[in-house]
Amino acid sequence: MSSSTSGTKPMLRALAGETVSPAPFWLMRQAGRYLPEYREVRSRLSGFLELCYTPELATEVTLQPLRRYGMDAAILFSDILVIPDALGQNVAFREGEGPSLTPIRSAADLDKLDPSRLHTHLAPVYETVRRLSKAIPPQTTLIGFAGAPWTIATYMFEGGGSRDFIDVKTAAYGQPGLFQAAIDLVVEATADYLVAQIEAGAEAVQLFDSWAGVLPEEEFRRWVIAPNRAIVEKVKSRKPGIPVIGFPRGAGPLYEAFAAETGVDAVSLDTTVPLSWAAERLQTKCAVQGNLDPIMLVVGGEAMDGAIDRILEAFGKGPFSFNLGHGILQTTPPENVARLAERVKRRR
Amino acid sequence: MSSSTSGTKPMLRALAGETVSPAPFWLMRQAGRYLPEYREVRSRLSGFLELCYTPELATEVTLQPLRRYGMDAAILFSDILVIPDALGQNVAFREGEGPSLTPIRSAADLDKLDPSRLHTHLAPVYETVRRLSKAIPPQTTLIGFAGAPWTIATYMFEGGGSRDFIDVKTAAYGQPGLFQAAIDLVVEATADYLVAQIEAGAEAVQLFDSWAGVLPEEEFRRWVIAPNRAIVEKVKSRKPGIPVIGFPRGAGPLYEAFAAETGVDAVSLDTTVPLSWAAERLQTKCAVQGNLDPIMLVVGGEAMDGAIDRILEAFGKGPFSFNLGHGILQTTPPENVARLAERVKRRR
Repeated sequence: MSSSTSGTKPMLRALAGETVSPAPFWLMRQAGRYLPEYREVRSRLSGFLELCYTPELATEVTLQPLRRYGMDAAILFSDILVIPDALGQNVAFREGEGPSLTPIRSAADLDKLDPSRLHTHLAPVYETVRRLSKAIPPQTTLIGFAGAPWTIATYMFEGGGSRDFIDVKTAAYGQPGLFQAAIDLVVEATADYLVAQIEAGAEAVQLFDSWAGVLPEEEFRRWVIAPNRAIVEKVKSRKPGIPVIGFPRGAGPLYEAFAAETGVDAVSLDTTVPLSWAAERLQTKCAVQGNLDPIMLVVGGEAMDGAIDRILEAFGKGPFSFNLGHGILQTTPPENVARLAERVKRRR
Repeated sequence: MSSSTSGTKPMLRALAGETVSPAPFWLMRQAGRYLPEYREVRSRLSGFLELCYTPELATEVTLQPLRRYGMDAAILFSDILVIPDALGQNVAFREGEGPSLTPIRSAADLDKLDPSRLHTHLAPVYETVRRLSKAIPPQTTLIGFAGAPWTIATYMFEGGGSRDFIDVKTAAYGQPGLFQAAIDLVVEATADYLVAQIEAGAEAVQLFDSWAGVLPEEEFRRWVIAPNRAIVEKVKSRKPGIPVIGFPRGAGPLYEAFAAETGVDAVSLDTTVPLSWAAERLQTKCAVQGNLDPIMLVVGGEAMDGAIDRILEAFGKGPFSFNLGHGILQTTPPENVARLAERVKRRR
């Protein structure tokens, strides 16, 4: 925990339901390839996960965007797939190809996973959080994170990224017992992982449910809302007062049920969530975060300025932190991020 | 036009706002690779578009699913990319790779496209519609279709399918004048194309906006709602009384503005649209169509039965036609389609 009291940090105030002006901001994947200093660090290592598991370098890349742009939050540099990796479903990242895992096909595959390895395997991540909590500026909030169970399960059952989610949905629809067991395993591991991040110094946590937006209502309630709620309850019972941000990307109208039923303190809005609808239906239930299109940050200029202003206008009268609707793209010109930071900070 | 009066066909009654029991049904991409008789016809030709441009064979594959399952609608067998192909931006389909076009990058690229080629190039499609209008059973409605402009533009600017829509969004956000000119060109061509389909015998038309669900609200209004509305107005002014179905796939809460503002007679719902929300917010504005997950049709059995029943229950008290939320997958067991047809038809 940094030396200032939590109550004075703009990001934590917004997550507690205050209207903060100017709005605090950070950007998903703010540490990344668009920064030359990130590419320099990354080039020293052969594997992507190696960077996540090397506290000195993970700390360094987490801090890089703060030095340039003074975001109100630092987000731990890591990856959502460290959970299946820690459970023993080894994850490989091949250059330009995305992650690759041996897919779960049966109860026997699932039984091979071993939750007892979790904290040993993830000790370097906790060490990164400890270093960050000492290194970030006093007004900056340290955010930890994990993937939400449905999204983690998509990788576990597909064996990597997917366009059509056929394997994971076939399991969820056709073998709901097996699939529930996998979700339960990930719920437990994720709650333990987030609690350990909080003990190491994380002041808030975000659950990324990147593939929440592909399910029908019935299955969304079962595989998105219920597991997110279970993790929120577990974390809050063990670490009262730590805010949780949910991100059911692509949830559409179901963002409303997610905000009302999971117990999250804030929802992170994807790019497609309509502003006026979200101000009326979501921001009245919890804080909101978002939702500039990352491609607008690549385009920059007056088009970006207008899009930023519309978001600030829509959400500026309630609890809100400015962010993107999805992670920064690697083709983003760093000067566009500076322009964004300047524009968000000068608005009040 | 088939010999029966339109008013007695279940699909047309539903599109006119009547509650029809049992609900009429058809399935997006009901003619396709999951059927062995389709694969047999397809194997006779080298290219996919060749099938779309061969009236005898396009008619045959359109009729194949009706013989097996007795759907209430036949949908013209064609592809949304015949429009850029007809305008001179030649489209190639490579086996297992999806479509490929030379992408539009400048006003000069756009100027090369030639709308005067439209009807000559698409004459075989109109001939297919004429043959179908004579060949389908008397209670079956013949649906024509086209892609909506935003979706067509994604292919035109990306040069094919896309995961991230960077090229098309960069054009839409950064060169809105050029992009508007492209959209306007597609609006005109699409309206002309649909009117010609109607003159050849189509009794209803559907506009597929498959990539509507990737835009922020402001851009959704400009590039999805406005062009769909422009086409609906043009078609209805020239062919009064012909119903138009809109399909802004992935539009989330913006389905509501789409249903209220485009003038469509029905909206086709993607798999993720929540049933109770759609019954309350959409079915009160127009007819609805949808929205079983195509992967549920692959899984089949009691899981599928339950999902079908939930949809029939939610929408059965208003204007509704049963369908999928997206096209049939090629791994679909034909017997699962038979089970679906039987279940939808016996409900009343």
